[in-house]
Amino acid sequence: MQLTNEQLDDLVLGAVFLATGGGGDPFVPQLLTAQALKRFGSVKMIQPDELANDAFVACIGGVGAPTVSLELLPSIAESVAPVKAFEQQTGKKLDALVSFEIGGANSLVPIIAAAATGIPIVDGDGMGRALPEAQMMTYAIEGVKPTPAIACDYEGNLTTFTTGNTATYERHIRSLAMSSGGMITTIEHPMSGAQLKAAIIPGTVSFSIELGRVLRGNRGTAEAMLPHLQEVFSHSIYGECRLLISGKVTDKATRIVGGYDIGSAAIVAFEDESEQLHIDIKNEYLVATQNGELKASVPDLIVIADYETCTPINAERLRYGQRVAVFAVGCPDYFRSEKALAAVAPKCFGFDLEYKPLESL
Amino acid sequence: MQLTNEQLDDLVLGAVFLATGGGGDPFVPQLLTAQALKRFGSVKMIQPDELANDAFVACIGGVGAPTVSLELLPSIAESVAPVKAFEQQTGKKLDALVSFEIGGANSLVPIIAAAATGIPIVDGDGMGRALPEAQMMTYAIEGVKPTPAIACDYEGNLTTFTTGNTATYERHIRSLAMSSGGMITTIEHPMSGAQLKAAIIPGTVSFSIELGRVLRGNRGTAEAMLPHLQEVFSHSIYGECRLLISGKVTDKATRIVGGYDIGSAAIVAFEDESEQLHIDIKNEYLVATQNGELKASVPDLIVIADYETCTPINAERLRYGQRVAVFAVGCPDYFRSEKALAAVAPKCFGFDLEYKPLESL
Repeated sequence: MQLTNEQLDDLVLGAVFLATGGGGDPFVPQLLTAQALKRFGSVKMIQPDELANDAFVACIGGVGAPTVSLELLPSIAESVAPVKAFEQQTGKKLDALVSFEIGGANSLVPIIAAAATGIPIVDGDGMGRALPEAQMMTYAIEGVKPTPAIACDYEGNLTTFTTGNTATYERHIRSLAMSSGGMITTIEHPMSGAQLKAAIIPGTVSFSIELGRVLRGNRGTAEAMLPHLQEVFSHSIYGECRLLISGKVTDKATRIVGGYDIGSAAIVAFEDESEQLHIDIKNEYLVATQNGELKASVPDLIVIADYETCTPINAERLRYGQRVAVFAVGCPDYFRSEKALAAVAPKCFGFDLEYKPLESL
Repeated sequence: MQLTNEQLDDLVLGAVFLATGGGGDPFVPQLLTAQALKRFGSVKMIQPDELANDAFVACIGGVGAPTVSLELLPSIAESVAPVKAFEQQTGKKLDALVSFEIGGANSLVPIIAAAATGIPIVDGDGMGRALPEAQMMTYAIEGVKPTPAIACDYEGNLTTFTTGNTATYERHIRSLAMSSGGMITTIEHPMSGAQLKAAIIPGTVSFSIELGRVLRGNRGTAEAMLPHLQEVFSHSIYGECRLLISGKVTDKATRIVGGYDIGSAAIVAFEDESEQLHIDIKNEYLVATQNGELKASVPDLIVIADYETCTPINAERLRYGQRVAVFAVGCPDYFRSEKALAAVAPKCFGFDLEYKPLESL
């Protein structure tokens, strides 16, 4: 399949929905992607099983606190330079690029790099959503080594890592992001086609386009949208889709702590002021509770959207007074396995609670 | 000249004096150096003018908060691995290694690496003392680019930097040090023999040995030691040596902030309790004031030593209740030039005061 500017609006709309508040604001990255696709032509997107087992693939995306990207704007060069440096330093040609995660910016960085270099992208990602840390990627969970990896900052400075494990690598790149203005682009977790096929959450880029089409085609209130969302998720790798609340944002605060956006939000129902949903944020919307009762938690998806249009709202764009709907969607089965939960369960984020699948709540 | 274990005690004693509180605690590095010299044999130390103009030289040393090195112990491997990786990645053999700075640990790291690899070291350093940041080195002031550079952490993880300027590079390595337990070893600021000769503070390693011999041979109170110090400094590249105070440490506090030890100390004179010297610390002893009056400041040297023996005391070892002497020594002329002061004057550390040479105070 060829990715062109025709799919871009739907891709971004769907990807931001799946990104559960994180993955980076899409505005500037979408402009850059449109420009790259116009200048360099369309991008070839392949399915994971089209890759040879000995193919050479790497992940690329932005690392940092999403808030930063609203002011420290990305560029085409910052997506392309690390790919070229990576091929030069490893002495190997890349057969494909793949996303860390579905997200407003992080779905687009591989497309920008692919357009400029002619390398295909893979239809899928390492999270099926967005998550804040590298060791939470399926690639890392499946044992892919994080390095050789290259980071590029806004000035074009390059840093090459040779690091034993992904948790240490995450610490190192996070600190580099913090000392580089808050955001860097990294190419990392190089792997074979066989490793990719064993680890990837498949089809999430094309599903984002499909989901975006549904959101765009049925623009309307959350209650009106819900059946359309349930329909599209019902024949996907995701689980049940629920509407947790429709209401007004009465509180929202995040701070950049350790290179992440950390904080919380509160939403009070339109119908009943005593009904209040609390959302914990670490880049992404992670835990939703109502009067102390768990309504949904990571790795299941928690999505905040504009109430009237169901346009998803990234955490860095969420504001006091906005009228919103909060949806929850069951995560892909992969993330309910024991080894995946060891990396992404609520306790991995410091929450003192056991993961309960959305469908059981 | 061949460096052997015979000079080691004097070298360390003199280097810690010149290091003005910073440069890293010498205890474990000295044990490692003794072990390396015993295992691999002596190290050739050459004078800067023995290097060919097209020789290839790089600096090596520890980066981080000195306090950390009291608990995160260094190893021979951490000094050797970055040198080997550097030669492999640049594809060039090093003709010599040189110190960032004179200091308890940072005078010894190049010797450990040199012993294990057979590469000579250069008699001199990039500060003539210790200073907390990379852009304060003479090499950087003279325009040597900081990279390619390689950092090695205690686990052996390697990080390679390609960074445009030393101030940015300093931010990047400092953040890596912080996310690697607080201390890393870096090899950096590669340069030609011609560049080194134009930038180095010459002869500081052999002068450390000479100074150490004086300190050891005349062990005694500060007042008794002073004429011996004045004698040895009088025929050196350093300026006047003064005894600022003899007294008791009545206050000492530092915290690790941004990867540096930041804080202050106060010393009250034995003879007169109203006479109190205040010392500002950022890894090193930087500014000495008495009742608001400037007594000495960076780039001049401020040295705190045990009162009875004149053994210099690193900032991370300074404690409430210690009986100490505070000496000040004029810095090498190089650091009084306009371009050097642009990098190392008190205002570069955030102090709202103009540099006044010790001899004018």
